[in-house]
Amino acid sequence: MMDINCDAGESFGRWTLGEEEALFAQVTSVNIACGFHAGDPWHLQQTIARALRHGLRLGAHPSYPDLVGFGRRYMQVSSEELHALLVYQISAVKGMVEAQGGQLSHVKPHGALYNESAQNPGVATVIAQAVKQISPELQLFGLAGSASVVAGKEEGLPVWSEVFADRSYESNGTLTPRSLPGSVLTDEASIRRQVRSFVQQKPLVSRTGELVNVHGETICLHSDTPGAATAAVWIREEVNQATRLGE
Amino acid sequence: MMDINCDAGESFGRWTLGEEEALFAQVTSVNIACGFHAGDPWHLQQTIARALRHGLRLGAHPSYPDLVGFGRRYMQVSSEELHALLVYQISAVKGMVEAQGGQLSHVKPHGALYNESAQNPGVATVIAQAVKQISPELQLFGLAGSASVVAGKEEGLPVWSEVFADRSYESNGTLTPRSLPGSVLTDEASIRRQVRSFVQQKPLVSRTGELVNVHGETICLHSDTPGAATAAVWIREEVNQATRLGE
Amino acid sequence: MMDINCDAGESFGRWTLGEEEALFAQVTSVNIACGFHAGDPWHLQQTIARALRHGLRLGAHPSYPDLVGFGRRYMQVSSEELHALLVYQISAVKGMVEAQGGQLSHVKPHGALYNESAQNPGVATVIAQAVKQISPELQLFGLAGSASVVAGKEEGLPVWSEVFADRSYESNGTLTPRSLPGSVLTDEASIRRQVRSFVQQKPLVSRTGELVNVHGETICLHSDTPGAATAAVWIREEVNQATRLGE
Amino acid sequence: MMDINCDAGESFGRWTLGEEEALFAQVTSVNIACGFHAGDPWHLQQTIARALRHGLRLGAHPSYPDLVGFGRRYMQVSSEELHALLVYQISAVKGMVEAQGGQLSHVKPHGALYNESAQNPGVATVIAQAVKQISPELQLFGLAGSASVVAGKEEGLPVWSEVFADRSYESNGTLTPRSLPGSVLTDEASIRRQVRSFVQQKPLVSRTGELVNVHGETICLHSDTPGAATAAVWIREEVNQATRLGE
Repeated sequence: MMDINCDAGESFGRWTLGEEEALFAQVTSVNIACGFHAGDPWHLQQTIARALRHGLRLGAHPSYPDLVGFGRRYMQVSSEELHALLVYQISAVKGMVEAQGGQLSHVKPHGALYNESAQNPGVATVIAQAVKQISPELQLFGLAGSASVVAGKEEGLPVWSEVFADRSYESNGTLTPRSLPGSVLTDEASIRRQVRSFVQQKPLVSRTGELVNVHGETICLHSDTPGAATAAVWIREEVNQATRLGE
Repeated sequence: MMDINCDAGESFGRWTLGEEEALFAQVTSVNIACGFHAGDPWHLQQTIARALRHGLRLGAHPSYPDLVGFGRRYMQVSSEELHALLVYQISAVKGMVEAQGGQLSHVKPHGALYNESAQNPGVATVIAQAVKQISPELQLFGLAGSASVVAGKEEGLPVWSEVFADRSYESNGTLTPRSLPGSVLTDEASIRRQVRSFVQQKPLVSRTGELVNVHGETICLHSDTPGAATAAVWIREEVNQATRLGE
Repeated sequence: MMDINCDAGESFGRWTLGEEEALFAQVTSVNIACGFHAGDPWHLQQTIARALRHGLRLGAHPSYPDLVGFGRRYMQVSSEELHALLVYQISAVKGMVEAQGGQLSHVKPHGALYNESAQNPGVATVIAQAVKQISPELQLFGLAGSASVVAGKEEGLPVWSEVFADRSYESNGTLTPRSLPGSVLTDEASIRRQVRSFVQQKPLVSRTGELVNVHGETICLHSDTPGAATAAVWIREEVNQATRLGE
Repeated sequence: MMDINCDAGESFGRWTLGEEEALFAQVTSVNIACGFHAGDPWHLQQTIARALRHGLRLGAHPSYPDLVGFGRRYMQVSSEELHALLVYQISAVKGMVEAQGGQLSHVKPHGALYNESAQNPGVATVIAQAVKQISPELQLFGLAGSASVVAGKEEGLPVWSEVFADRSYESNGTLTPRSLPGSVLTDEASIRRQVRSFVQQKPLVSRTGELVNVHGETICLHSDTPGAATAAVWIREEVNQATRLGE
């Protein structure tokens, strides 16, 4: 069955973010913030407990060190420092998961670091090597068709390509840039149709109308957009339906 | 042979602190900052590499979340939050150590948290339980004769009592408060004599002249006082000498 | 007319907090976070613009340096450091207000610092002196009958005593501790009755039924409790009514 | 007389940086950190007191929000956020200076923000406008010949062009990139000769041997390089000498 993942643990102190109970009922994997873009230890502990109760796969979601920017803006970080940042963050969450009797299953870079690792082979390699150093059995989640996937495979990591239910694709298989109209899908029919394409491994309709093949093992559900819980139900239903049909 | 420990990894970004090369040549254990009072990931990585090169025992040195206060002032933190803070920090450093092929040997609370855990049985128990949850084989370093040692033993942890070469003791075996004159020993003779008392397990001379028994398994070397490297040599020599004499 | 104040500017980066538009329509003063417990510069700038549009009195709301704890827990800060913290924070917000053509009217300490300044004359004096050093015309908001009010008056500052519409009082005029049942008023009738007591300067009914005089110049509206916007309307209506009646 | 400036207030909590007493004896202007790359309020207060005792001109030295990176790496910050960051930081230091009876004289962006403002006219304009909004009488310090100087003049600010005593120049008047050999001058003769060129307003010798005119009103003295205090004396002597000669 195709995996569905969402971000989690993105509250901080007095501030809460994300409808975790509603989303955790629909997804199969969660990417847990590691404290550098969000997630204080106490909230992380509660999110981990919740994810374990729901029987989900737990991953670490490391970021550039940018709390006020929520890890969403590029920072010029050296390879050495990036490696250290990653080992620190992934280890912290891995240890918190294990302290509750769970096991860390994967790593997905967050925000601007995710984008960098998709485009920049050097950054992608630093990430893959840091993950491998912690454990070569950890899966790496990376944007389908990107440098991140290439680097993960080169390092011998199990890699899951990530596809997006609520983002339009270009005819070459890349995500439509957010600056273009139509880049974000919000209506039920479009989202359901795109999920069906993913689970049936059939071509999807690109923004400009051509058919394009986009394959992946996990579908990203954006956890902090309005209506996330509703879209989660649509995606879950389509994945379940396809699974029942033996696809 | 009696253990000598010092704090390490207490640089942060542009700011460096501590003569690690000089001190690491004399001590046998290091307590590595975990990022909450000091220690960015890149410096931690380098400190860990240095400690491994020196063949030292590596411990985690968790703190209240207070970078600007260097973890040296009391903060009102709930038991639940304290537990989470500790698991996060210890796990981060444990993972960084293991990524370099080492193994975490112990945990020593830092600064105000160390003082709290010595006096406050509730705090001491939260710390002991957090350490145990990560691994029941981790040693806990606590002030000799304090609540910290009691709680660690109650939780079944291996506990090492900590004694101080450069601090005077009262006749009841507690440390002389820093507010009193004579609380800090700075002259070579006093420091050497006190270390001899520790390693020979003989009574030491208290501030007020009485003999008092103070036992411990590890001697604390303050790493950020002026002259730390010189005092380190004195302590090392006395420990070596006693060991040669079969004590 | 009696003043009504609420906290504001308590968002941070990706995290938003408080229904500012709804509350700003009812209050006459706002206490703007200064970045140490909440409030990044960009959110502060927007909150200041909004408060100026509503024609409100703008104050600074400085805190202990504790983002993850939202300034709500006691920290052991020296008088010298506290003074510096206050001048930094108040100056930052004062300058931001003036850059938009406004004027800073008052200072209200936040959270644990507010509580400390109510009980601890030393802390109260440090606060009053820091405010005075910035400008002796700044008003100080302090808990009615507390050390904060005494210290502000001793330093010659204009002081506004603060009273609470949604908190019960003891027969000696102090707030009912939150640990006791009935400490927080939530029903419309109780809140309206208490506001009428304040604006009419008549005794209010204490938790244990006795009449007690509690006087103040400004009523605190808690901005981050559920139903804050509804309670704001009740308080505003009672203040307006009393004003129309010439009280 | 030509101005000499250095950075200051760059300690943070337990960590100290810079030989302020030695440098303040030689410079005429200081650029005071504002808390975002360095400088906690208590250290800032002490640095301001020291600068006032030395009779120096006090400026604000705002930065990207990057404590662990010391403001030395580029961050993708929107214009709106950058404006707010600047007003917050400059106001904080301006208020702290005024609280001690001083007056803020200038603003110099720090680190990566300084570099951005030299090259990027959009960033330079945001900075100039933020400074002007606080006070049109504040001087802006910018790299001689750069976008920063252009933007400052367009906004009508008093601008001081900054030149470097310990950096080599290319034949087109730009600084030799640090990646090239010879970019940093360390020997006494070269530094003294370059300062004489500045104060006598005569062409200096570029890295490749051509004469080039580089004019400025203030000489930057790097405060955190080893030997800063010694270089400070050389620069001060050359400026004094030229001044005595009526230049």
